[in-house]
Formats: sequence, structure tokens, C-alpha cells
Amino acid sequence: MAAERGTRIVVIGGGAAGMSAAASARRADSECGITVVERGPYVSSAHCGIPYYISGLLEDIRELTVYSPEYFERERRIRVMTHTRATMIEHSARRVIVRSVAQGNEESLGYDSLVLATGARPIVPSLEGADGLNVFTARNLEDAVKIRQYVDNNPAGTAVIVGGGWIGVIMGGALSSRGLEVVLLERTDSLLPGFDRSLSCACEEKLKEKGVKIRTGVSVTGLAKERSGLVSSVFFSGGAVKAGLVIMAAGVAPSSELFSAYGSKQKGAIEVNDLMKTGIEGIFACGDCATAYHVVAARQVYHPLGTTANRQGRVAGANAAGRYSLFGGIAGTQALKVFDLEMARTGLSSAEAAMYGFKAFDVLTTSPSRARYAPGGSLITTMITVEQATGRVLGAQMAGRESVAARIDAFVPIVSEGMTLQRAVELDMSYTPECSPLWDPVIYSLREALRRHTQEHR
Amino acid sequence: MAAERGTRIVVIGGGAAGMSAAASARRADSECGITVVERGPYVSSAHCGIPYYISGLLEDIRELTVYSPEYFERERRIRVMTHTRATMIEHSARRVIVRSVAQGNEESLGYDSLVLATGARPIVPSLEGADGLNVFTARNLEDAVKIRQYVDNNPAGTAVIVGGGWIGVIMGGALSSRGLEVVLLERTDSLLPGFDRSLSCACEEKLKEKGVKIRTGVSVTGLAKERSGLVSSVFFSGGAVKAGLVIMAAGVAPSSELFSAYGSKQKGAIEVNDLMKTGIEGIFACGDCATAYHVVAARQVYHPLGTTANRQGRVAGANAAGRYSLFGGIAGTQALKVFDLEMARTGLSSAEAAMYGFKAFDVLTTSPSRARYAPGGSLITTMITVEQATGRVLGAQMAGRESVAARIDAFVPIVSEGMTLQRAVELDMSYTPECSPLWDPVIYSLREALRRHTQEHR
Repeated sequence: MAAERGTRIVVIGGGAAGMSAAASARRADSECGITVVERGPYVSSAHCGIPYYISGLLEDIRELTVYSPEYFERERRIRVMTHTRATMIEHSARRVIVRSVAQGNEESLGYDSLVLATGARPIVPSLEGADGLNVFTARNLEDAVKIRQYVDNNPAGTAVIVGGGWIGVIMGGALSSRGLEVVLLERTDSLLPGFDRSLSCACEEKLKEKGVKIRTGVSVTGLAKERSGLVSSVFFSGGAVKAGLVIMAAGVAPSSELFSAYGSKQKGAIEVNDLMKTGIEGIFACGDCATAYHVVAARQVYHPLGTTANRQGRVAGANAAGRYSLFGGIAGTQALKVFDLEMARTGLSSAEAAMYGFKAFDVLTTSPSRARYAPGGSLITTMITVEQATGRVLGAQMAGRESVAARIDAFVPIVSEGMTLQRAVELDMSYTPECSPLWDPVIYSLREALRRHTQEHR
Repeated sequence: MAAERGTRIVVIGGGAAGMSAAASARRADSECGITVVERGPYVSSAHCGIPYYISGLLEDIRELTVYSPEYFERERRIRVMTHTRATMIEHSARRVIVRSVAQGNEESLGYDSLVLATGARPIVPSLEGADGLNVFTARNLEDAVKIRQYVDNNPAGTAVIVGGGWIGVIMGGALSSRGLEVVLLERTDSLLPGFDRSLSCACEEKLKEKGVKIRTGVSVTGLAKERSGLVSSVFFSGGAVKAGLVIMAAGVAPSSELFSAYGSKQKGAIEVNDLMKTGIEGIFACGDCATAYHVVAARQVYHPLGTTANRQGRVAGANAAGRYSLFGGIAGTQALKVFDLEMARTGLSSAEAAMYGFKAFDVLTTSPSRARYAPGGSLITTMITVEQATGRVLGAQMAGRESVAARIDAFVPIVSEGMTLQRAVELDMSYTPECSPLWDPVIYSLREALRRHTQEHR
């Protein structure tokens, strides 16, 4: 399959997944030809840092790109075509057609292996006024630059955020700490749909404490766009709110159009196996445009996340270059910090467990972060989801102020390895008074769950 | 075996293990008779809190007892005999002879099950002057009261600590933060023998930064005791140091004399199985006087620790009351905090791996605690010990300022379940910029170890 001067690899998308794939392919094969095609101006960007740029902690957006295109060209011999869009795959001829965004001129890139790392795009509800000049999404660095510019010029405005998921909540925190009045509108009855309501209410309280106004259970019905092109208010079921700035954070959808004519998809995401192979020989997909194997659900799911994109990119790149590399799957782990509140989860939530056919129960506990006599402790809320028949730990969620993201990591091997409560509760976890009570919230919650399981479910 | 009015259970020792055993026996059998025999005045004491009492953060020593003897008598119907010492087991007659420490009168307690939870005692080197009035050990609450009294009366003195293990280091920190000049003398060439030197040096630096003077590689040869009965200086190989107060922290040895005539021992500790049974039917042992099964070393070891004492006590108590309960073993996990430095470990160190016959290698990494662009991060040093042939993770040690104890807990299931690097590195750990970089030190160190293993050992 390799061309005379080595394998030709084309990567579509210069985000986390694409650049990880390109770098990984280079490590796997020092001779292969690698081309990355990226629509925007940046590659290798750290989207998770956008709130720091918005809130003013970072001054230069380039601090959110790990490496520049020049770096990849010079140090890794990877050709990077920015401002370039892939328009069509001609797989029978093993080539992809790309077009310069500015000039419009087309080029045909031949490949032996094609890696699709086209990412995801924000879902913008088709509402009257959604094209207003002060309506933004918060997906990539270009978005961040626009929002920051707007905020710098209008430092005392009102920001209306449509959507109370991860991005909505984090942007709400960033804009609020920047001094703006923030109104968060969420369609469902609680923020952070990945969390149980008994945990997400901690996030709601924290945001309210910092002055963010939250309206849950409301649908946005339209935006009042003035002649200036600016939106002045947002209408929702039951009211209206003035808006100087609107952030659309209603979730993302995989950007997988390029692959439309080819393999199978799940919720629009390109279905892959553990080698990141699509159904088409020679075409790989990774990151936010692709599915990922969930080790607890034991199936391919769509759960786009930066860490997954990086990990899948590595695997796709190595395999594209002829190596054999396996993706170890995801466990549904996520963490976020809103002001001083950390929220983290891994495995399946109660709702997900039901969706995947598990008969499960939840145990909710609240326990201290430190020994009773050690100063400065706080409470941590933990919910554990357990398979009823077996006692297997399917998932855990935590909210609190101290080491919650780090604590959830102790649950990651527990849920990934399919450990039962009986086994997990006997793990020899660390103890030192200023960092945990004798029974850390991790063990405390497992003990309580085991007690409940023993009493009620056997 | 049960007497007419229920099983008679006698527990020797009212520390963490003994009181856990008694409470667990009560939960298992609401009718059995339970007597706890304790030499000192306190039961259910939290030794780990002693530094907080010494440093002045706690005013009342009773804050370090979880429950009073009266609580156990009243709420759990457990007879608690404080100031009482067990002097002999007459197992053929199923009775134990106890003697009141104050009055000297003896009593014979019949039992069906006997639980030995006699703990450990500090090793005091047999040195000239070691009986000085200002020479203390730091094992129990009585010790803590004496030290605190001395320090309250002599707030500007010099404390010499003999031994740079866990207790020596923690007491050094507490006395230093109390304003005393502290000199720490350690026989080996580094503090905290359970850690590799490349990590324990962080502890040494932290203590020095806070003004503690450290001399490693020195043997204490004697103490100059004045006519007043007070020691005025401590002599060691290569010098002498003035002392207002001396703390002997040269390690502990199991208090197992009572059992001398009976079953087998290891390093003086009573050998038990996973049911906490000794070799003698009807006699159980738990806590600091007993061995514990090490899940990585796959054998019984002596590794006394508060969490283990609690866990083993529960198991011993349940089994003593006729239930069937199994101890899940230890993984060698330990954590401590000295000023703002956290140090934690789990599994086997390099030296322990060699001792238990593993052919292993270590990988040392230093990596950031947060994303590059998130404010306030610091460096975490991690050492992973890996079995050469299999790539199995045998142990991990960490030192740093942020969530190190919590981070080591993510390694606990990894080493306990015998996961390989290849498998562990694929765990879907959490990521959020203010709590970790994209690759948290846990994953970063595993990745580096895997890279090394792939390059050098296969």
C-alpha cells in the first residue's frame, strides 16, 4: 500500500485528535509523508483553556495552542495546511479534495491512510435572531477571540447563556468572574445533565452564590435582533431577558459530513473499532467526530472529550502508519471546576445505567474531606451507582471543594475493572488527617453502598 | 462453644483495632458478652491526631478519642476495663487473667473468643540516659499529654528527635510549628525509609526550609542526664546537640508477649490468616500486634498502621462473634503531610520489590499538577516500580503539594488488581485544567514507565 517514498498519511482536522494522530504517525514511521488539513488558523489548540482567556487570566490566545503549525513543519516534518477545508473523499482513487478557504483554489491530496479528525460543532438552535452579531458559540479559539473582544469592549453587559451543560456552566463562571451579569437558561430541570440532580444542585448553588441567575426548565423561543444586527434580548418560555451578549451552548454534534457516503454512524458520529478503523479499509477516525468504546457500558458511544481525542488520535496515527495500537476505551470520566467547586464523575450515571439495560441502584452520601480534628475540612457529596444483582460498581459522581477530581480517579480503575463493592471497599486507600478522614469519601461511600446492597438487594 | 447467655468475647486492647473489634462483634451479635481490657485511661483513640494536639491546634486531648468508655458501655453494652492489664492467657481453660494497674487485684475473664489487639510499643534504644524525665515516646495519648505539658512549660526549647521515620518527621513538623528549635537525628542516610531517596529528599528540604536541622547517617550513642533527672544533650556519632526535650521515634515493635506461649510470629507479630485467626482456635489477633496480608507481595507482612488496625478489628470482631468475614489485605499504602508537602505511597518500593524476589525497575518523573495555563500549579514527583518481565505496576510513590494523597489512591486499585502498565495507561482519568494537566501525574508517570519498559525491557 505504501507509495514509493513511504506511506502517505492525510489527517483532516488540526485539533487535539488530528495533531496527536500526526505526531503519533511520525513517531511510528520517521519516513512517511504526513499532511494535516485544518479549516481554521490554529492547530493543536487547548479548548479547555478558553475560560481562562475569556476571564482575562490569559492575555494571548496563542497560549492556548500547544504547538504552532511551524513547529510541526520544522520539528516533525508534518505539512500543515491551515485555512483549508476538505470537501470530498474519493476513496476509490485514494485521494481527498481540499479547498483553500480564502482563495477557493482546490488541490487533490493522495493518501494511503486517511485520518478523519474533523471534530464536532456547536448545535445552534434555528431561532429567529440566532445570527445576531453578538451571538457566539464557545467551541474553538476563534470563538474565544470574538467573545473576549466583545467583553473587553462591553465590560459591564449582561451575558445570556443558552444551555446549562458543561460549556454553559464553565462559560457562565468565566463571564461572571469577568464582572458581567450572567443569565443561564437551561431546557431541562437541572444543570449538567451528566450528573444526578442531587449533585448538580451544588453547581447551581455555587453559581447563584456568585450572582449568576439560573432559569431551568425553560425553552428559548427567539432572540430580538435590532437593526444594528445586535441581539438585545432573549425570549424564553415564560419571559424575556435583556442581553448584551448571547452564548449558544446547547451541545455539540459530530462533524462527519465528509464521511457521509462511506461507513456507518451513531448519532452522526463515525463508528470506529478499537484500532480507530472505520468500516472502510484505510480510513481512520478519532476524536469528537468518532465514537468511543465505553468500558462500563461495553459498547461504542458518542461522548466527545479532549482527553479521548488525544488518546484516540495517538492510536489512529500509529495504526495509519502501519503499527498496531489499541484504544483502551473510555469510562465516561469528566471533571470541571466552577469557582472553588469541583465536580467529577466516572462510569455510568443512574440514567445511563438504565439506558444500557443495567438494573442498578444509587447510594448518595455526604462525608468530610478531612479528619474531624484537622482544620479546614469541607463536605464532599458522592453518589455511587451499583448493579443490583452483582454489586458491581458502575459509576461514581462527586461534588466538593477538595481534591474531588483526584478522588474520582480512584474510582476510574474500580469501574473500569468491573470491581464489586465487596472488593472495592477492601482497597487499602491512603489516610492522613489533613487530606482525608480515616475513611475517605471514596471508601466511605463504597461502605455505605455495600451496607445498602447487603440490606436491601440480596 | 457459646455459653448459656451468649458467646463471651474478650478483647485485649482498647485502641483502634480493639474497639473496632468490639463494636463489630456487637453489630454481628446483639446478645454476646463483650469485655475490652485496656491498660491506659483512653479507648478508641486517634493517634494520628497527636501532632495537632502537640502543635496547639487542639486544646483537649479528649478530642482525639472518638468515643469514651462510657459511650461503649451505655450505647453498645460493651464492658470496658481501663487501667487494666492482661497478664496471662490460659487457653485450655478459656480464660485470661487481668490485673488492675492501680490496685494490683487480679480477675479471671472467661471467654469463648479472645481478640488480641495489644498494639505496638515504641522501640527505645537501650542508651545511657534514655530514662531521663524529658525523654518521651510519641505513641499514645498519654505520651502526647506529657509532651504537650513539657512544651507548654518550655516554649522556646530545643527538641531532639531520635529517628527520621514517619513519627519522627511528623513530630518534627509539629514541634517546629510550635516554635521549638528541632534537631532530627536519623541512622540511615535519608528520612522516611519507606520512600525512595529521590522522594524523601523533598521532605528533608521542606523541614530544612522550616528551620528543622537534620543529621542523617548518625547513630545516637548516649544522653547526658543531669542530677535533676533531665537530659541536657544528646550524643551521636560525630557530635552532640543540646536538648530541652528528646523524642524517641526509632520505630515500633508489636506487643505480643501475651501470646508468647501460643502460635507463630513474624518479626514478633502474631501471624494471622485472612479471618484474623491465629493458629489457636478461638484466638484472634488484629492491628499493630498482628501481621497483615499484603496483596502485592502476596504474603503476610508486618506493616502496622491505623487504617489496617480499624479494618482488621472489624473482621476479627465479626468472626469472634461467629460471623464469617474476610480481610481484603493491605497494599502498603501510606500518606503524610509535613507543612504543605504531601507524601504518599502504595504497593512495593524498589527495595521491597527486591526483598520479595521481584525483578523490577523504577521510573522517576516530575510533572505539573495543573494545565500549563491554569494559575497556581506546582510540580509533583512520582516514582513507579514495575515488574520487569510482565510490566505489572508493583508500586507508586509521590511527593508534592497538591492532592498527592488523593492521587496515590488512584494507584491503589492499579497495584492491588495487578494491572500492567499497558492496561493502566489506558485508564480514562479525569481532566480539568485547574486540577490536572491533560495527562495528570498519575497517567504521565505510567506513560513514561511504559515508554521505558518498551524501550529497555522487552
